[in-house]
Amino acid sequence: MKQFLLTLFISSVAMGIQAQDVEQKLKDKGIVLTAPSSPIANYVNAVRVGNLLYLSGKGPTKTDGTNITGKVGKDLTIEQGYEAARVTGINHLSVLKAELGNLNKVKRIVKVLGMVNCEGNFTDHPKVINGYSDLMVEVFGDKGKHARSAVGMGSLPGNIAVEVEVIVEVE
Amino acid sequence: MKQFLLTLFISSVAMGIQAQDVEQKLKDKGIVLTAPSSPIANYVNAVRVGNLLYLSGKGPTKTDGTNITGKVGKDLTIEQGYEAARVTGINHLSVLKAELGNLNKVKRIVKVLGMVNCEGNFTDHPKVINGYSDLMVEVFGDKGKHARSAVGMGSLPGNIAVEVEVIVEVE
Amino acid sequence: MKQFLLTLFISSVAMGIQAQDVEQKLKDKGIVLTAPSSPIANYVNAVRVGNLLYLSGKGPTKTDGTNITGKVGKDLTIEQGYEAARVTGINHLSVLKAELGNLNKVKRIVKVLGMVNCEGNFTDHPKVINGYSDLMVEVFGDKGKHARSAVGMGSLPGNIAVEVEVIVEVE
Repeated sequence: MKQFLLTLFISSVAMGIQAQDVEQKLKDKGIVLTAPSSPIANYVNAVRVGNLLYLSGKGPTKTDGTNITGKVGKDLTIEQGYEAARVTGINHLSVLKAELGNLNKVKRIVKVLGMVNCEGNFTDHPKVINGYSDLMVEVFGDKGKHARSAVGMGSLPGNIAVEVEVIVEVE
Repeated sequence: MKQFLLTLFISSVAMGIQAQDVEQKLKDKGIVLTAPSSPIANYVNAVRVGNLLYLSGKGPTKTDGTNITGKVGKDLTIEQGYEAARVTGINHLSVLKAELGNLNKVKRIVKVLGMVNCEGNFTDHPKVINGYSDLMVEVFGDKGKHARSAVGMGSLPGNIAVEVEVIVEVE
Repeated sequence: MKQFLLTLFISSVAMGIQAQDVEQKLKDKGIVLTAPSSPIANYVNAVRVGNLLYLSGKGPTKTDGTNITGKVGKDLTIEQGYEAARVTGINHLSVLKAELGNLNKVKRIVKVLGMVNCEGNFTDHPKVINGYSDLMVEVFGDKGKHARSAVGMGSLPGNIAVEVEVIVEVE
């Protein structure tokens, strides 16, 4: 009985440490999540079916409310596009936080559709969307590794540099 | 026992009213569903997995069989693009009706990918895809509120103005 | 008891025949699967949730490691685009083989997003993506019939002619 309780105690501590991992990582890295922007039309930030969360496409809205805009490869460098994809990822983390209360409930980042605003001769979409993918693996570790497409759009709303949609498995 | 049967009766009536809601709404609004067009290739209008229906991308085919074509913002106004998105939505309702027999079996419109045919300087994709989103909420109420991306395509089949694909949770 | 064992035997034989179908079909058709290319970034070829496999977008990488590149309708004919879509499909079969061990575990090709690299005036996307769809039905029969969108991208990574992503139901 004593041993059982001890095991239980150790498990709880271990789980507690793990459970604080993701939220702690964000703090360690200085990633600040703000309240996600609300859609201004007849749709929502996320819909849950079973243990899957379908997140609406988000863009690189900065904490001051402005967007990173322009066509990557023309108005923006690949590095600036990478940063825009990372900011987009942070906005998805904000949506996940608002939906789940705690980011440790994320079981797996399943599928990412990374859309880059660019002209017809652009070819480096993966290097741009890596900004999103790297963030997810930085934050969630192996749970952050996803299936992905990185493609080029002729245009995006408000001329944002990047838009990403994602499916997330949750506990 | 009497009270139980009464409750049962009232529940049935209430369910009956709710169950006729969506189909009745379509009649009230004069939305007429026709048989959905059949894919002329090796694919189908919808595939069901568990309680999810994945619908093929549809476009703004009118009841006379012709399509609303052209690039929004160039050949078509935003208002005409909105109308094209609404017509696309009606075509998805036709597919749902054909698959389910009764639109009241729709539990949730889950995820919409709204694709607008436009040139590189177009920025009002959300205003166009609202034609689809507004229809879904008009018809299904809160069940019609979905996760969404609204993006710009360089081109679409047959130069249609809009193409939308959708995932629907069904009973 | 005898009859039961006989039924069991016949069922096993029948299942055996069916089970070798897909792998045998590939041999009969001379379709050779190679090891799928590994993503060179923080993502993976496929993620499984329940009985669904989400496959990353793949392109027309040939067995010699080079890609079919160029814009369909400008640099490539529709027929060449069709072939690129077919090669893309073979690459997805390689991913499925690597994930599942045996292609007979494929229960249904659920949803295909077929993206064609082309200019704004291109209109024959379905004819291109048919190269992918035809392959799936050739290999999997009715299980290969999927929901689909076939759309035009302003650009794709490395200027590949086609990129496809797919959701597959597995046993």
